[in-house]
Formats: sequence, C-alpha cells, structure tokens
Amino acid sequence: MKLSKEQIQEIKDQQTQKNTTKRVTVLELEKVLYEAIPVLDHGFIRVVDYMGDDSSIVQSARVSYGKGTKKVSTDAGLIKYLMRHWHSTPFEMCEIKYHVKLPIFIARQWIRHRTANVNEYSARYSILDKEFYLPQPNHLAAQSLSNRQGRGQVLEGDDAKKVLTLLKGDAEQTYRNYETMLNEKYDGSIVDENSVGLARELARMNLTLNTYTQWYWKTDLLNLMNFLRLRADHHAQYEIRAYADTMLDTLKKWVPITFEAFMDYRVGGTEVSAKGKIVLQKLIKGENISLEDSGLSKREWNELMTSFNLNDKII
Amino acid sequence: MKLSKEQIQEIKDQQTQKNTTKRVTVLELEKVLYEAIPVLDHGFIRVVDYMGDDSSIVQSARVSYGKGTKKVSTDAGLIKYLMRHWHSTPFEMCEIKYHVKLPIFIARQWIRHRTANVNEYSARYSILDKEFYLPQPNHLAAQSLSNRQGRGQVLEGDDAKKVLTLLKGDAEQTYRNYETMLNEKYDGSIVDENSVGLARELARMNLTLNTYTQWYWKTDLLNLMNFLRLRADHHAQYEIRAYADTMLDTLKKWVPITFEAFMDYRVGGTEVSAKGKIVLQKLIKGENISLEDSGLSKREWNELMTSFNLNDKII
Amino acid sequence: MKLSKEQIQEIKDQQTQKNTTKRVTVLELEKVLYEAIPVLDHGFIRVVDYMGDDSSIVQSARVSYGKGTKKVSTDAGLIKYLMRHWHSTPFEMCEIKYHVKLPIFIARQWIRHRTANVNEYSARYSILDKEFYLPQPNHLAAQSLSNRQGRGQVLEGDDAKKVLTLLKGDAEQTYRNYETMLNEKYDGSIVDENSVGLARELARMNLTLNTYTQWYWKTDLLNLMNFLRLRADHHAQYEIRAYADTMLDTLKKWVPITFEAFMDYRVGGTEVSAKGKIVLQKLIKGENISLEDSGLSKREWNELMTSFNLNDKII
Amino acid sequence: MKLSKEQIQEIKDQQTQKNTTKRVTVLELEKVLYEAIPVLDHGFIRVVDYMGDDSSIVQSARVSYGKGTKKVSTDAGLIKYLMRHWHSTPFEMCEIKYHVKLPIFIARQWIRHRTANVNEYSARYSILDKEFYLPQPNHLAAQSLSNRQGRGQVLEGDDAKKVLTLLKGDAEQTYRNYETMLNEKYDGSIVDENSVGLARELARMNLTLNTYTQWYWKTDLLNLMNFLRLRADHHAQYEIRAYADTMLDTLKKWVPITFEAFMDYRVGGTEVSAKGKIVLQKLIKGENISLEDSGLSKREWNELMTSFNLNDKII
Repeated sequence: MKLSKEQIQEIKDQQTQKNTTKRVTVLELEKVLYEAIPVLDHGFIRVVDYMGDDSSIVQSARVSYGKGTKKVSTDAGLIKYLMRHWHSTPFEMCEIKYHVKLPIFIARQWIRHRTANVNEYSARYSILDKEFYLPQPNHLAAQSLSNRQGRGQVLEGDDAKKVLTLLKGDAEQTYRNYETMLNEKYDGSIVDENSVGLARELARMNLTLNTYTQWYWKTDLLNLMNFLRLRADHHAQYEIRAYADTMLDTLKKWVPITFEAFMDYRVGGTEVSAKGKIVLQKLIKGENISLEDSGLSKREWNELMTSFNLNDKII
Repeated sequence: MKLSKEQIQEIKDQQTQKNTTKRVTVLELEKVLYEAIPVLDHGFIRVVDYMGDDSSIVQSARVSYGKGTKKVSTDAGLIKYLMRHWHSTPFEMCEIKYHVKLPIFIARQWIRHRTANVNEYSARYSILDKEFYLPQPNHLAAQSLSNRQGRGQVLEGDDAKKVLTLLKGDAEQTYRNYETMLNEKYDGSIVDENSVGLARELARMNLTLNTYTQWYWKTDLLNLMNFLRLRADHHAQYEIRAYADTMLDTLKKWVPITFEAFMDYRVGGTEVSAKGKIVLQKLIKGENISLEDSGLSKREWNELMTSFNLNDKII
Repeated sequence: MKLSKEQIQEIKDQQTQKNTTKRVTVLELEKVLYEAIPVLDHGFIRVVDYMGDDSSIVQSARVSYGKGTKKVSTDAGLIKYLMRHWHSTPFEMCEIKYHVKLPIFIARQWIRHRTANVNEYSARYSILDKEFYLPQPNHLAAQSLSNRQGRGQVLEGDDAKKVLTLLKGDAEQTYRNYETMLNEKYDGSIVDENSVGLARELARMNLTLNTYTQWYWKTDLLNLMNFLRLRADHHAQYEIRAYADTMLDTLKKWVPITFEAFMDYRVGGTEVSAKGKIVLQKLIKGENISLEDSGLSKREWNELMTSFNLNDKII
Repeated sequence: MKLSKEQIQEIKDQQTQKNTTKRVTVLELEKVLYEAIPVLDHGFIRVVDYMGDDSSIVQSARVSYGKGTKKVSTDAGLIKYLMRHWHSTPFEMCEIKYHVKLPIFIARQWIRHRTANVNEYSARYSILDKEFYLPQPNHLAAQSLSNRQGRGQVLEGDDAKKVLTLLKGDAEQTYRNYETMLNEKYDGSIVDENSVGLARELARMNLTLNTYTQWYWKTDLLNLMNFLRLRADHHAQYEIRAYADTMLDTLKKWVPITFEAFMDYRVGGTEVSAKGKIVLQKLIKGENISLEDSGLSKREWNELMTSFNLNDKII
C-alpha cells in the first residue's frame, strides 16, 4: 500500500482534529479513526466515521429517554438476548463508514450486499491508479476437485511462478495500453502531444479485473454483521476474507459487547435442521442412528458431524 | 407535551456530555441535540444522534482521503451540482437519528417510507401513555369537496365543538377500558386485586388511532429529503407536515449548504412534462396556445399555470 | 367475512379467466387464485398474482437459457442445497401478490417487514368498512407472568365476557361517532343534510385499532419466507400467526419443493451457539456438563434443552 | 451474439409452451417472451417472465377486489395522475424479469441500482465465455474536453484502428492466459494433462473489463422506470443506453399506458428550480431578465435555456 505525501498529510490532518460533541464516542475506535490499515498487497480499510455504540442498541430497544443503561451487566444481557432471538432493528441504530481500496473482482462480490451506501471512484471521470493485485505464492491455490467453487492445494514452485508472471505481465501491458489509448499517463502527463485520447469511460474496459478501485462504504451494524458472517467465513474467497477479518477487528473496537454475542451466536454457532435435530437427540440418548434412518443426504450427514466435531461418525 | 422529572433529568444528563472526537461535528445541531422540540399537542421531535456534515458529501463524491474540501465556495458548487443532477449516493453518506412522539394514525403514514430504521415503543410489552391527539379548532377542517383526499374549510363554532367533544370522550373512554382490561392503570397501579389482566398485545386493540406512540427513527440524508419533500408539501396532511416542518429546521442546522440546494431544486422547484414544456415555450415566444392544442387535460393545464403563477391563464 | 354481491361477482369474473401464456404456471395455486380465504372473524387472504415456480429458482441459480431443469430430483437437491447454505438471491426470483384484509393493530406489526410492496386502502380518501376484530373466547388470554411480551392462561367466563363487551361496545360507539363526524354513514348515506362533515383524514383518528383495513401486499419468495419464519412461529402474536398459517398453505401449493426445504431447515430447524455446541458435543460423548461449566445463562441452557427435547435436563 | 444449438433449442422449448392461467397476460409481450434481442456485439436482452399489466396498477391503487378497471379511458387517466404526482407504490405492483448478457464494465454501472434482484453467472464456479465487447468505430469517441465524464468527437481512421487493435489484442491475450492458468479451454478441453489448473476464482482476475458476463435481473415497474430514466438518458454512457433503449421497447409492449405517461412526464419532462421558475415567468410576461438578476449560475442558465429550446438566450 503506497500513499502519496498529500494523502498521508490529509489523513494526519483528520487525525489531529479535536472536536467536542455531546454524542456518544468510542475511545478504542477513535484511536484508529482514519488510519489506512493495509489489506492484501495494495489495499486498505479505513474507518472514516461512525455513529452510536453498544449503549445505542439498548437505548433504542427500550425506546428510552436517556442513555438507557444503568448497569453494564444488564446491557450485555439484553444485547445477547436480542442477538439470540434475531431481533434486527436495534442493531440497525448504529452506523459505520469505511473507505476501502480493493481489487475490482472483489468489489464485484462485495457490491452484492445491497443494503449499504456506496460511492465508488469513477473511472468515467478519472484515471485509475496503476496498482493490481498479485497473490502471495501461498495463496495461489489450484481449483478444488471436490468443490467447484473453492480452492484446492497450493500450486508448487514453477506452476506458481508461471501464474504470477502471466498475471503481472498482462496487468502491466493492459495498463500501458490503457494509458496509450487515454493518451495520458497515470501521473497526468501526456503521451503524444499530437494525438487525441479515447474517452475514459471507454478506455477503462481494457483493464484487468485485479486492478484496484476504491470506495466509501457505509452500512448499519446489522448489515455489517450480515456481511461479516458471510465474508469472514471459511467458505468465502480468501481475498474478501482478508478485508472481512480486518473489519472484524474494527467491530470489536467499536461495539465490544455486540462483538462477543456475534462471535458466540453467529460466527461460532451453527444451524441444525429438523432432521438433524432428531439425529443429535438420538446420539445424546445413546440410541443407534444410521445415515439411512436419518433422512439426511450423505453430504448433510457429514456437514452435521463436522459441525459438531464428531469426526468418528463422518462417512 | 409533558415530560416526567426523570425524563427531563435524563435529557439534561445527555446534554451535559462533553466528549472529544476526531469526527466532524456540527455546532448548530449540537446546540439542540437531545432537546424535545414540541409538535402538536403532546408530540415531539428530538435529534439524538447524527453522522457527517456538508463536507462529508463532498468527501465521498470525490472519494477523498481527507475532508474533501478546499474552499466552501467549491463545496457549495459541487453540492448544488449533485442536487440538480439527481446524484443520490453522496447524500446517503450522512445519517441522522430522531426520537419522535406522534399519534398512531400519523405513524401509519410515516412508516410507508421504508428506507429508514425504526424501533417503536412496544404495546405488546408495555402500556401506552395516556395521551391522545386533539386538533386545535383551526385545524378542524371539513372534507374537501373538490379533492377527495384533502381538507376544505374550517368547521365553525358548534360543529367544531361537537367534534372535539366526541374525540375527547371516545379517547378517554377507550383508554379507561384499556386500563380495565389490563387490570392496570397507566401509572402501574392495579385496578382490582382479585382480577387477572388481559394480555397487553390484545388490550391495545381498544385504543383509538389518535393515541400517541413513539419511536427511534434513523435515516440517511437522501431519504430524509425524500421524506421532507413529500411530507412538508402542502398536499400532505397537516399533522404530518407539523413534524416535517420541525425536521426541516433541524436539516438547516445540520447541513446548511445542502438545505439551500434542497429548497431551490426540490421544495421550491417544479416539474414540467414534455407537453407542458411546449406550452411554456409558446408562451415565451408570445405565440397563441389553447388548452385544446396543448394536449393537456384541463386539470394538467391548471396545475401548470398555478405552478408558474399565471393566474390569468387558469381556466 | 362478508363480501358484497359486487365483490363476489368481481372475484368470480377473475376466476373464470382463461388466458394462454408462455410463462410457467402452477396448477395447484391457480386453483385458489383470487379466492378469499377467511382469516379471523372478518379478514381474508387472497392470492391475486404470482410469478415463477420451483423451476425458476433453479433456472436463475444456473443462469440458464432454458427452464433450468433436467430432473425433478436434481432440482430438489439444488434447492435444498441453496436453502441449507443460506443462498438468498435465487429465491428472490419468484414473486407473489396477496390481497389481505386485517385489523389495524396487526397491519402495524406486519408493515415492519420493509422489503415488500404495499398499497393500503386509504382512509384519507374513503370510509373504512364497519368491521372490527373481536377475539374468540379461547383466544382471550391473560398477560403472561413470565414473558412480558406474551400471553398466559385463557380468561374464564365472566372475565372473558366483560372484555368482549367492552371491546364490542367501544368499537361500535367510536365507529358511530366516526360516522357522525363524517356526516356520512358506512353505506354512503348522509347523516344530517344541514351539516358539514369533518375531513376523512381527521375523522379516522377516532377509530379503534381493531378496525379492519386492507391492502395489496407483494413480495418475493425469499422475503415471504423470512416473514413466515417469524410470524408463523409460536412466539408470534396469535392474530398475525393466523394469517401466516394461511399463507404457509399457499406457499406449499406454489413451490412445494422449496416449501419442504423451508420446513426442514428453517421452521423445524434450530440454531446452536458456539457454547451450545460444546454442551451438545459433551452430551453426545457421555461426558458430564453442568450449567456452571457451560458458560450459558440458565435461560440459554433451558432454551437449548427445550429445543432438543431434553426435558430431563431442564433446570 | 452467438447462441449454441443447445441454447437455441432451450429457448424454442420455452417459446412453444402453451399454458392456461387465470392471471392477466399481455399479448404483445408474450410475442417476444424468451427471445434473445441483440444488444452491442455479443450481448442480449431477454424478457423471461413478468407479472401484471396496466390494469394491475389501477387495481392496487384502488385496492380493488376485481380487475380494478371500468373503462380504459378512466384507467389511463388514473395512471397519468399517479405518474404526475409521483405516486410510487401502485407501480411497484408489476414485476418483470430479464436475462441479460453484457460487458463487465457495464454490469458494474448497472448493479449500482440496488432495488432489484440479481443472479449473476459465477466465475468462481464456471468458465466465462470467450466474448469481449469491441466498440463499433462510430462509438470510439475521444474524451470530452468540456465534460470530464463524457465523450467528445469520434476518433478518426488511424486513431480508431489503433484503439481497436489494442483492445482486441489485449482481450484475446488475457483470455488465452486465463485458459493457460485454468489449464482448461473455454470449450472444456484440458490444456496440459500433466499440469494443475489455478482456482477459477483466482484466474478470472486476469480478464479485461470488456469480457461479457450474464445475469438474471428482476425488478418492479417503478424501479425499472427509475433505471430507464437515468440510463436511457443522453448523459448515460452509450453502452448502457443501448440496453436501456431495448428495454424501453419491452416496457412499451408490456404496459403501453404507463409507457406513454412515463415518456411525457419523466423522459420528455424537465425540472425547474425555484429560481428557474421566476426566470420563465418573467420571460412569459415579456419582462427583462438577465443572468445577473436571475441568481442562477451561467451553467444553470444555459441548462434551463437548452431545456426549453430557447437557443437565442444561451450565453
């Protein structure tokens, strides 16, 4: 992640602000406010604003007049209760805004979460930075053979090298030709004084999907947790998980009580189907239960056993 | 609007907070933060939290690293441009949260704006306050004869008195019977020690629609303006307009540049249809144009002339 | 549920339509299309339109050119997989539209589900029907003593009678005064030729919350299931559950494969927290585990045991 | 646009369906149902399902038991009224589903409309088609000098040729290397039996943004019109306008009355600010009005004059 001198200065200027407010503030989050936390090779996550804290959830759940909290223990109990019973609206009462730099193919996954506000850097209007994502060798995984949507083993020496050479070469070449078509370099200098540049909204189509873009992304706490549950999960593609993991840290700083309930009930929790419940009940009672009697498919059976660490029962 | 001693104290406690933050703050809005601004006879509007200011719009429109502002004049120009060309996403980057007390029949109109977060006081869980909306005599209007959805002239002396007597009598009686069914009074005292109260979720059905409820309502700046454009309009029912007008004041304090653009382009502006444009063009050129030639309906013609104050041309 | 002759005729006219279409159709649902299925004492549910069937889910999950189906068994497997892994977008590809008549206090709960389209009968514009919800005696429950948001035992003889008398009396009186204020009866006749009626938008505030209203409500399959999961649940208020149960029947007719997966994974399924998983694992392995060691609250422990029918372990 | 034999057959199979339904059907739209209407060089628009017609808007606006229509003339009047006064919910009662093939950089613009349901072809799961968008020479425009977000003059001979050569060369090369990394060709054949392919979710990052993707896209009539108003506008990028124009045709076939009102009030209409209204009023009255007195910026003044074809008044 490279920031220009001007960008570093702008961030510093924001961080040295000392404003007085009657709003609730969160000390732990204020400490990292505006900071560009690196993700992947050129990306970052910056928390640029927030509204509310754990007590705001309690306040609105009680539609109370005041801060709505007397003892922390009571608040924690209420937040856990709300999380356990899938109450949604109180968690919508907190809001957070991020500035994110990320590769375009990850931005395309991310944007599928519709319940957020987004302002993306416009490549119709401006020239994109000359930065592309190149995976670390230990993330260059082969296609999974069992899961059409996943990764298998990491590629070995020469195979990995070849991939990186291709990715790097193509990204650099297409970017170079992007500049040629624009008749303008990434730093604003003109390529050929006697030539006319192609419209930016057209030239951008020549860039590869690992080119970095950036956006402001704002969402409420409920939808942030929905995002993180899916994207910090081991089924998620590594590259988006890298962002989600960094955001989990900011969640912990922001709303520590909610974070704990979220980890217990959502991230670490699991769901059991009606048929799965019967299987577990029989196992608890020491009764015999086989795949055939369970009504589960083999795949479901194994998912259930894996989820409960019953490795000796996996078929 | 009556607040209990405890409520007044809680509000004071919030208002005496002095927290330090690196976030942008808005002095004018901080001044009224948490204050219960009276609306109608028992209702209020309280701003209880906010995020961002005018500069946040500019910041996200530019996907800037810093505050996104160089000169106030440039910022104002950009905000006006964004408003004029219906750019929506930058205005979604600011957020505000209100605590509102309002009659149920108004809450039912209000809730039709779906793009907001709401936590309402639960009458399944708690007993509603003994407060009902009774219109001021000058708002007791007859049914409009020309507009099935509007008000006509104000009722005169006895007619008005009769209406108020009926409204007051019925609200008080149904509330009294609500207490009887609950076997509990609004102040928490028991009615009959030997009796059992009906479930709150059932008893509430006996209340009239002018009973007050309250909620936390949080929305972004774009959707707040969409709400205000419709509800501060003269077509809106007076009772919801009273809330919208109060909220317009808070909008002005919060984001003064956006407020001005909003008043010019949305509230004070108008729309002209393709056919209407031709009519206006002809009028400007001094050409003759009649209702028949215009392709407009009589109603459309008159709406157009009214909108441009061409009263001599209204048919 | 009373329908006027004209309404009955209109429904019949719709039901005798025989249109030809290239769209997918669902025979079982067509059989009940437009029918007013009674709910509560005066309410109903009518399916008035729909789009897609089980195969549409498969079609869009595969972004297929054709019907997206090879064998029913494969389709069922895919739908179950999608449901199990919380894939959401394919289920959004089917849409259904209901016409619902329901008491206002239930409409207020219902409308909290924001991801639906709604057109409600306007009491600013028209006069509401003279119909109010009066519970059956076996639904007149006392306030629960253990759950502030629930019902306890059914009220006995005299207590029940008294409640019904109050509800009926107040609803009839407030409606009568509504007519008086409007200077118009529910059937359109004028009350007093020499008097002027209060605006409808004002007079409606005198009605009680058990008055019936009606609306068109349209949603996609995903959000319908979200609605049903919450509202057909035993925690939901009986009156809204009555509607949800009727809608569950229409779901079964419409998309039988999805319905089955929904019942298995959502309605009949349960969630287990990270801590709860460890408890179940220990129970399966025959190890000792006590409330104290579990890290669960007593309430959580009991919820877990209840969920798995381990009644001997409830504390 | 190339379709495989199998795809052509699948489309034919759908088109030969003849199902009977009690739902409303639209003959004109049925005629083109499922048809792949070409857009750009390899893209298409297919209407694959729909729900409702013009009468459904009227039906729900009236919360009617029947078809909600008495005479076509009355219906048209109501629809025009609803459009003119920005009533939104009745237009949400119709739904349409498209299957779209489009270049990725256009998909990225399109997806910013959040109020729609989308299922995109997954390049984590499958290999993307070997198809990239190459503009027609007459669409190869230079960057606009006056509008940073627009196009200027069309590039001349050699400049155009050079651009096309670069675009074609880079797209083909990056796709070839995509196949190499995958160790699999677009037709499913293996490249090197002794090698292992990179995970699809990674390899896709090497593709350029003019690669075609496809999705199912479903939205209601209101949001479709919001989309078309922005994307069929002359400010929109040509490539997305090509899709919007094709969709406008399907809108006309589907809901002809709504289409006409939409063209009059939205597409052909304009907005006038509070200050702009005063300018037009003065012009109509033959009074003098100058830029200075108007309070408009020069840019606003010219936009207003252009909008009303008052070319002699443009400064």
